[in-house]
Amino acid sequence: MRTIDEAALRTAVTAAHAVDTMRDAFRADGEGRAHVPAVINLEIPGARGEFHVKTAFIEGVPYVAVKIASGFYDNPSKGLPSGSGLMAVFDADTGMPAALLFDNGFLTDIRTGAAGAIAADVLAPPTIGVVGVLGSGLQARHQVQCLRVVRAFSRLVAWSPDEAHLRAYCDEMRQAGYDAAVAASPEAVCRATDVLITATPSRAPLVRAEWLRPGQHVTAVGSDSPGKQELAADCLDRADLVVVDRFAQCAAFGELRHALDAGLLTRHDVHAELGQILAGRKPGRTHADQITIADLTGVGFQDTAIASKALQLVVS
Amino acid sequence: MRTIDEAALRTAVTAAHAVDTMRDAFRADGEGRAHVPAVINLEIPGARGEFHVKTAFIEGVPYVAVKIASGFYDNPSKGLPSGSGLMAVFDADTGMPAALLFDNGFLTDIRTGAAGAIAADVLAPPTIGVVGVLGSGLQARHQVQCLRVVRAFSRLVAWSPDEAHLRAYCDEMRQAGYDAAVAASPEAVCRATDVLITATPSRAPLVRAEWLRPGQHVTAVGSDSPGKQELAADCLDRADLVVVDRFAQCAAFGELRHALDAGLLTRHDVHAELGQILAGRKPGRTHADQITIADLTGVGFQDTAIASKALQLVVS
Repeated sequence: MRTIDEAALRTAVTAAHAVDTMRDAFRADGEGRAHVPAVINLEIPGARGEFHVKTAFIEGVPYVAVKIASGFYDNPSKGLPSGSGLMAVFDADTGMPAALLFDNGFLTDIRTGAAGAIAADVLAPPTIGVVGVLGSGLQARHQVQCLRVVRAFSRLVAWSPDEAHLRAYCDEMRQAGYDAAVAASPEAVCRATDVLITATPSRAPLVRAEWLRPGQHVTAVGSDSPGKQELAADCLDRADLVVVDRFAQCAAFGELRHALDAGLLTRHDVHAELGQILAGRKPGRTHADQITIADLTGVGFQDTAIASKALQLVVS
Repeated sequence: MRTIDEAALRTAVTAAHAVDTMRDAFRADGEGRAHVPAVINLEIPGARGEFHVKTAFIEGVPYVAVKIASGFYDNPSKGLPSGSGLMAVFDADTGMPAALLFDNGFLTDIRTGAAGAIAADVLAPPTIGVVGVLGSGLQARHQVQCLRVVRAFSRLVAWSPDEAHLRAYCDEMRQAGYDAAVAASPEAVCRATDVLITATPSRAPLVRAEWLRPGQHVTAVGSDSPGKQELAADCLDRADLVVVDRFAQCAAFGELRHALDAGLLTRHDVHAELGQILAGRKPGRTHADQITIADLTGVGFQDTAIASKALQLVVS
């Protein structure tokens, strides 16, 4: 069985590949061609660790990926990364093992960035000026790189709770050709930007509803477990269009959860799952002044789609 | 990451290892140390295929296995085996990948055989004469091999719906030193034996309650999905002790399901989960005349236990 390491995957899979792949994957989901069983979550209490296993089948995609990811929060004290795992890829016609992808999270990171770009493509205004980023980690990078595939822009404004990371991030973005400025606060970012990306592990809301501007699009990717929240619940109430990647997941642990819990929204107030827009079953943005929010938690079919694409790129 | 193939696993893991490992694993389960999340089942309808993913953590066992098994029922027409898969093994303290076991089902087969032996060890009479087998496949072999670890016997009587397979099986067992006889019917097997092993994929009951004899123990391993059944439902009603590997699984797709559906038993009539007996929380057989039935469907902690043991044996 073929084994593919992170370096080979980084060489083969570009942001443009990832965006094309996620566009097809979300369209497939919206057309009812993505089959996504419930995930496995296994806690290892004594070691402050956990395993998550996800898989999915997309009709028309030649491979099925099973992603096994671990998080062990005492690992850094042992000189090990807290996250680890692999993707096992199987032929969707025969079930035979095809490849093991030791991506160290790269494929998850880039497909998450690409999903944000796909959401912005159907929800953000056709022309954008300044892009704002809350966060200074991997998603602060991947979201911007992938967004650049679907929208032209050069101005970035960023804020992060970690000032050293924030400066390093803006330096890196300047070297990549962006006009990147450090902001003093989340409010300053929010008030200055046409597209706002929130990509922090925050457990308290960073963005207030009154800071949102008409025509603004927000992609929120930080909340991937029940304790996390980046947007105040009334942001979703103020938005004209709330779009989710998966209703059930966002209602359980996305930004949507907080708005539902607060009684500000019902499930009928969610405009669409992103796949429904890609499939043409629901519209994206229809007016220049609409405020739009995409609440993205990451769905198993994205892993099968990106792993299948990566394997095809590496073997071709 | 270390890759271990089937040949290396077959060399390293004996029936005696498997039986010891399952004894420890079921005891751990009975002591509440086995953590078993729900499995993933992914259907691939267009290809008559399916994937199953199981994992578990056992406190005190150094590795966690994630077993990915596929069944694609058109594969034989393509010259491929219908079943495939692998076990990915991770360090339970750090989550780091430790090994990939390409066992082609061997570890599942031997741990299933060993679970049957563990059940017989606590439920069958201390001294047995003739062992009966319904079936002539892999489990007809593994169950006998593993039972031999816990009970001395040399006489086998077997029946199988496939006469050619049955003769080949008895020939093989004779070469292995058993006095193995072909029986004309399931009834002939049942009436002649102290321990009865049912290991067929039957979808209609093969064993009638009136054929069971006082003091007899039955290990049923064939029913692993809702459509399968080897024992008439009233066999479980006639038995003095009904023991299951996992109540929820047996109630859903083991022999127990049919007895519950028929209203012959309630959950209170199930004597114990096997782990409870191994842990000393429930007794095994207490009288020479008891009829005992073990309904075994296979639980995820067995995979983690056997994979962990196999990896330790191969690297030692």
